[in-house]
Amino acid sequence: MQALVLEQKGVLSMRDIDLPVELGPDDVKIRINTVGVCGSDVHYYTHGAIGPFVLREPMVLGHEAAGTIVEVGGNVRGLAVGDRVCMEPGIPDLTSRASRLGIYNVDPSVRFWATPPIHGVLTPYAVHPAAFTYKLPDNVSFAEGAMVEPFAIGMQAAARARIAPGDVAVVIGCGPIGIMVALAALAGGCSRVFISDFSAEKLAIAGGYAGITPINIGEQSLKDVVARETDMWGADLVFEASGSAKAYSGIFDLVRPGGTLVMVGLPVEQVNFDVSGAIAKEVRLETVFRYANIFERALQLIASGKVDLKPLITDTYDFKDSIQAFERAASAIPTDVKLQILMESGGK
Amino acid sequence: MQALVLEQKGVLSMRDIDLPVELGPDDVKIRINTVGVCGSDVHYYTHGAIGPFVLREPMVLGHEAAGTIVEVGGNVRGLAVGDRVCMEPGIPDLTSRASRLGIYNVDPSVRFWATPPIHGVLTPYAVHPAAFTYKLPDNVSFAEGAMVEPFAIGMQAAARARIAPGDVAVVIGCGPIGIMVALAALAGGCSRVFISDFSAEKLAIAGGYAGITPINIGEQSLKDVVARETDMWGADLVFEASGSAKAYSGIFDLVRPGGTLVMVGLPVEQVNFDVSGAIAKEVRLETVFRYANIFERALQLIASGKVDLKPLITDTYDFKDSIQAFERAASAIPTDVKLQILMESGGK
Amino acid sequence: MQALVLEQKGVLSMRDIDLPVELGPDDVKIRINTVGVCGSDVHYYTHGAIGPFVLREPMVLGHEAAGTIVEVGGNVRGLAVGDRVCMEPGIPDLTSRASRLGIYNVDPSVRFWATPPIHGVLTPYAVHPAAFTYKLPDNVSFAEGAMVEPFAIGMQAAARARIAPGDVAVVIGCGPIGIMVALAALAGGCSRVFISDFSAEKLAIAGGYAGITPINIGEQSLKDVVARETDMWGADLVFEASGSAKAYSGIFDLVRPGGTLVMVGLPVEQVNFDVSGAIAKEVRLETVFRYANIFERALQLIASGKVDLKPLITDTYDFKDSIQAFERAASAIPTDVKLQILMESGGK
Amino acid sequence: MQALVLEQKGVLSMRDIDLPVELGPDDVKIRINTVGVCGSDVHYYTHGAIGPFVLREPMVLGHEAAGTIVEVGGNVRGLAVGDRVCMEPGIPDLTSRASRLGIYNVDPSVRFWATPPIHGVLTPYAVHPAAFTYKLPDNVSFAEGAMVEPFAIGMQAAARARIAPGDVAVVIGCGPIGIMVALAALAGGCSRVFISDFSAEKLAIAGGYAGITPINIGEQSLKDVVARETDMWGADLVFEASGSAKAYSGIFDLVRPGGTLVMVGLPVEQVNFDVSGAIAKEVRLETVFRYANIFERALQLIASGKVDLKPLITDTYDFKDSIQAFERAASAIPTDVKLQILMESGGK
Repeated sequence: MQALVLEQKGVLSMRDIDLPVELGPDDVKIRINTVGVCGSDVHYYTHGAIGPFVLREPMVLGHEAAGTIVEVGGNVRGLAVGDRVCMEPGIPDLTSRASRLGIYNVDPSVRFWATPPIHGVLTPYAVHPAAFTYKLPDNVSFAEGAMVEPFAIGMQAAARARIAPGDVAVVIGCGPIGIMVALAALAGGCSRVFISDFSAEKLAIAGGYAGITPINIGEQSLKDVVARETDMWGADLVFEASGSAKAYSGIFDLVRPGGTLVMVGLPVEQVNFDVSGAIAKEVRLETVFRYANIFERALQLIASGKVDLKPLITDTYDFKDSIQAFERAASAIPTDVKLQILMESGGK
Repeated sequence: MQALVLEQKGVLSMRDIDLPVELGPDDVKIRINTVGVCGSDVHYYTHGAIGPFVLREPMVLGHEAAGTIVEVGGNVRGLAVGDRVCMEPGIPDLTSRASRLGIYNVDPSVRFWATPPIHGVLTPYAVHPAAFTYKLPDNVSFAEGAMVEPFAIGMQAAARARIAPGDVAVVIGCGPIGIMVALAALAGGCSRVFISDFSAEKLAIAGGYAGITPINIGEQSLKDVVARETDMWGADLVFEASGSAKAYSGIFDLVRPGGTLVMVGLPVEQVNFDVSGAIAKEVRLETVFRYANIFERALQLIASGKVDLKPLITDTYDFKDSIQAFERAASAIPTDVKLQILMESGGK
Repeated sequence: MQALVLEQKGVLSMRDIDLPVELGPDDVKIRINTVGVCGSDVHYYTHGAIGPFVLREPMVLGHEAAGTIVEVGGNVRGLAVGDRVCMEPGIPDLTSRASRLGIYNVDPSVRFWATPPIHGVLTPYAVHPAAFTYKLPDNVSFAEGAMVEPFAIGMQAAARARIAPGDVAVVIGCGPIGIMVALAALAGGCSRVFISDFSAEKLAIAGGYAGITPINIGEQSLKDVVARETDMWGADLVFEASGSAKAYSGIFDLVRPGGTLVMVGLPVEQVNFDVSGAIAKEVRLETVFRYANIFERALQLIASGKVDLKPLITDTYDFKDSIQAFERAASAIPTDVKLQILMESGGK
Repeated sequence: MQALVLEQKGVLSMRDIDLPVELGPDDVKIRINTVGVCGSDVHYYTHGAIGPFVLREPMVLGHEAAGTIVEVGGNVRGLAVGDRVCMEPGIPDLTSRASRLGIYNVDPSVRFWATPPIHGVLTPYAVHPAAFTYKLPDNVSFAEGAMVEPFAIGMQAAARARIAPGDVAVVIGCGPIGIMVALAALAGGCSRVFISDFSAEKLAIAGGYAGITPINIGEQSLKDVVARETDMWGADLVFEASGSAKAYSGIFDLVRPGGTLVMVGLPVEQVNFDVSGAIAKEVRLETVFRYANIFERALQLIASGKVDLKPLITDTYDFKDSIQAFERAASAIPTDVKLQILMESGGK
């Protein structure tokens, strides 16, 4: 099958590649319609590795996908040929201890699309377990369906935060994930979200949403803003979504006594961490690793209109122009949030 | 001081009455601006009692109030003369075991406005602990401030429900409390709320809000609607807000496996309860008694625009016409949600 | 294979029966050593049905089992031939929505041993998914291994209760499940457990454990004891384990403000339920349906010596005397807690 | 009144000092019987400061205390002259936002005994709010009563951990606090606790308790022990109680996927923290600052016999020999856990 293949660090090609196509009894086969370009795809392209995951042989990219079911396995119930769907890209071992606990995202044996050595789905067809394939509501487009995966990370952060209705939140970092976290926090019960970054362009996009207040930390102190806006009490929730180790400096000044810090961004290096500062306010800290049991809820929020991801889709490329899309993504234009690739000529 | 006094069951009068006015060091004195008419006020008027609380001597009515601080005690910090505020009507013993646990709403010694023998605030001035007096954000009117108390019950229900972002909810009963619960559940993280009632008029009001779907159970089966809209899975959350014992018949058919029932409405009689039906789905059940630590969060949601209570204020009466307001409330017009009484001639 | 077969209501026979023996790649085959006689087995024997589960064709009884692995499927990791194990009797669909959430006990498609039409394991060999087969620690006997299943119900109750360390608990009902709940609550963090019943014999068995205080409600008022022992505050946790609808009368008098009622027993009829009484104390209510993710924890507590189930094994019968064991169980001797059947001549 | 006064860093004296003795209406006056010597008392003696709390004028030491009520204020209910009691040493502002939430331990305005500039209770009498004075059960001695305060820190750690019954725990650091955490974790629901340290003497004391397994990390790898004892899964809970920044190196190797790290010890410096390692297992992290709503539960566990603190009381000094007790405590003998000072000649 034709696919966008990362041959090695820095080398992409559009070419035929042998991919598994056998449909098991619990699987569905999907004609892929739309695939988003994710920062991790781009990172494999530019660096050849993410942490312990190192590209050692050619791999198909792409893991944010939506499409149409074209075949269903014999055991499948609740999905049928013709259904429009999006897919959760990680396939856990359902018999594992983590999966039985409902936290299949931390099953050590999970197989995740476009994470070496597992192929992704920038290719016309994919076979996937029905259990991790989700029907799109009629009013959710393929383009929105392909946004569910990145939004699910924000949703997992909001779920792990255990938001109490009306909580005031701060999100540090206004990249795609920071914005997803902010939207999920708002939809998930926060009254207000302050989002901070150095990039005026990124902040302008986030600030376009009602309920999100952008804070340019090149111009003002986040600590001062939070103190002023919360009558010196602090934010109920702080989400670290920049992945910068520097963000941890003074971070507990932002949190109210008994508040919560949710760590979403992955710092490359060790972090200088003020354990005593956390203890002095008895802060709870949560971490976020991908997502589990989130896609249905994300789809409900999109379908209901509480969350609108469409403004975050900056541009769409045809499948044949995939390399061009990746080159643009690698150039990190601050006004770009999400680039998508349209696999079918038939349209979105 | 002039006040609306419930002399005995069925007998209201506007007259002077001696009320405590001594300002303690932790108190503030408030010039009352707006007071909402609550179903419980009306019930004391029409029945003379609610459960164990029986009117034995004349009592001032009114407990949903907003106003302006005119005097502050010596220990008070964070509030000043001229501040626009709303007040939590229950005053617990802060040294009690329940209060130390943060659940001061269930402190058995709480003193609650307009609950015999404690006077309410349908009178020009009131003295109140600063700890239970909350500053109104600039963009929140007195009328909205006086809506915080009933909305707080909905918020408490949403808090006790421990909503996961994107949960689908059902609210049974579309009276004022049911609507408050629905709005709090939506603002608190639900994706969709179905609200059921027999009254088309009440449902029309709730259905005016985006995200709330009214279900007229005189016309269709709530169970069928929920099954259809949740792919036979059931609602994550069901809120019982009608107070009708009949609502419990078949109620667990509405809840998904592992879902939650939140009991808000107070049935007068014992309820026929299907314990085995609850167990078969391992349903969690929560109850809601007034509220604790909710007013700040409610104000944040109103100020941020996520919750708009203004459409629920059906009409406003001058203080001098209070008895007229109570007579209208007692007549239970289905299109009436909230009547308010304006205490100050100066306006809202 | 030879098996104890319930032919129809009231008719047991020891005879050969065809049972599935095919070993799938994720399965293990177990030579059964010990099987406990459960109240539900006896109920099928005496009544032919439990709620919606009706015996329509001959069924092998028995679901509390331990034994030795004699064969493992090709995918199985972590278990080997010769391992001593106990088994979780319910087999859910791991791809179901409930299973993915970690609450596989409420998966509607679960297949449960000795629940019509699924055969139990009072037979020399059984095939079972490795994922629901648990290795016994060296110091846990087969007899104790076969007690894990009933103890797991108590553990699920303790888990759902969310015990805070030092909580004071009341358990209503001193049958086998009540005792299991009491032991799990104590091991799970309670400081004291009061257990109530009318049967002095049953209470004597429970009272033999340090930390459990028996209350004979034929002789004294449970409400009075709880009030006295908790300085009028009430118990943090009340577990209803009698299954009697009458137990719900006045039950909220036992619970402290903000406390919890855990409903374990299955009343046959509807319960007269004081919803307003629950609300006045803002009680949380939890329900318990079998168990999920409990067997490992139960085994840890038994192996560590924190929980000793051996005193609860009243008597042991040889497999050939199984019918005799069931007849004794059906006679409900109050000093009997658990009867077990030894399948292997080789001993416990 | 005679008192043990820390005049300045390194200088103790037994002398008369003026102390507030006015009994407010919500207060009780206590004749002090026993006071424990805490590491923080010793630290003020040897260093003159702990973090931001600096000794600037003479201060009475001691905050782990038990005694007998000799006078009660006019509003006090539930306590009487002659009651044997222990006291919570922090006095929050009950009207504060943190106190209303039930987390009075993180009220920034809390006044804490023997924390500059607040005097402690190494003096014959103290006046204290009744709300933070707890009656000793008849079978709890004054010596045990004076151990409730340090044990309460362990209990707070166990409470914040949200132990699920049967959890396996690791406690890093076998000082007095580490041992208290281990005991609270066991009593609070854990099946097994591994405790690690370099000191064989300290480990021997902890290892004397059933359920606690000492690990000498000078001799074996804690990571290897945990991996072996948990079948490579990891501990459900890890408590960091050493306060050493080095303990954080590789700490997430000890935790199971989806497990919890509870941070109790206060490192002086910043900690090198592996945020990505925490995220990869989606670890929850909790912090512990003193305690709130713990003393009653601690007393219940001691009175019930589930927790025995008596073996931890190494030696007792007469009040007149207090300086000697502090000199011994400052010498940090590894077999010493707790030294106590007996204030009354009448005995324990």
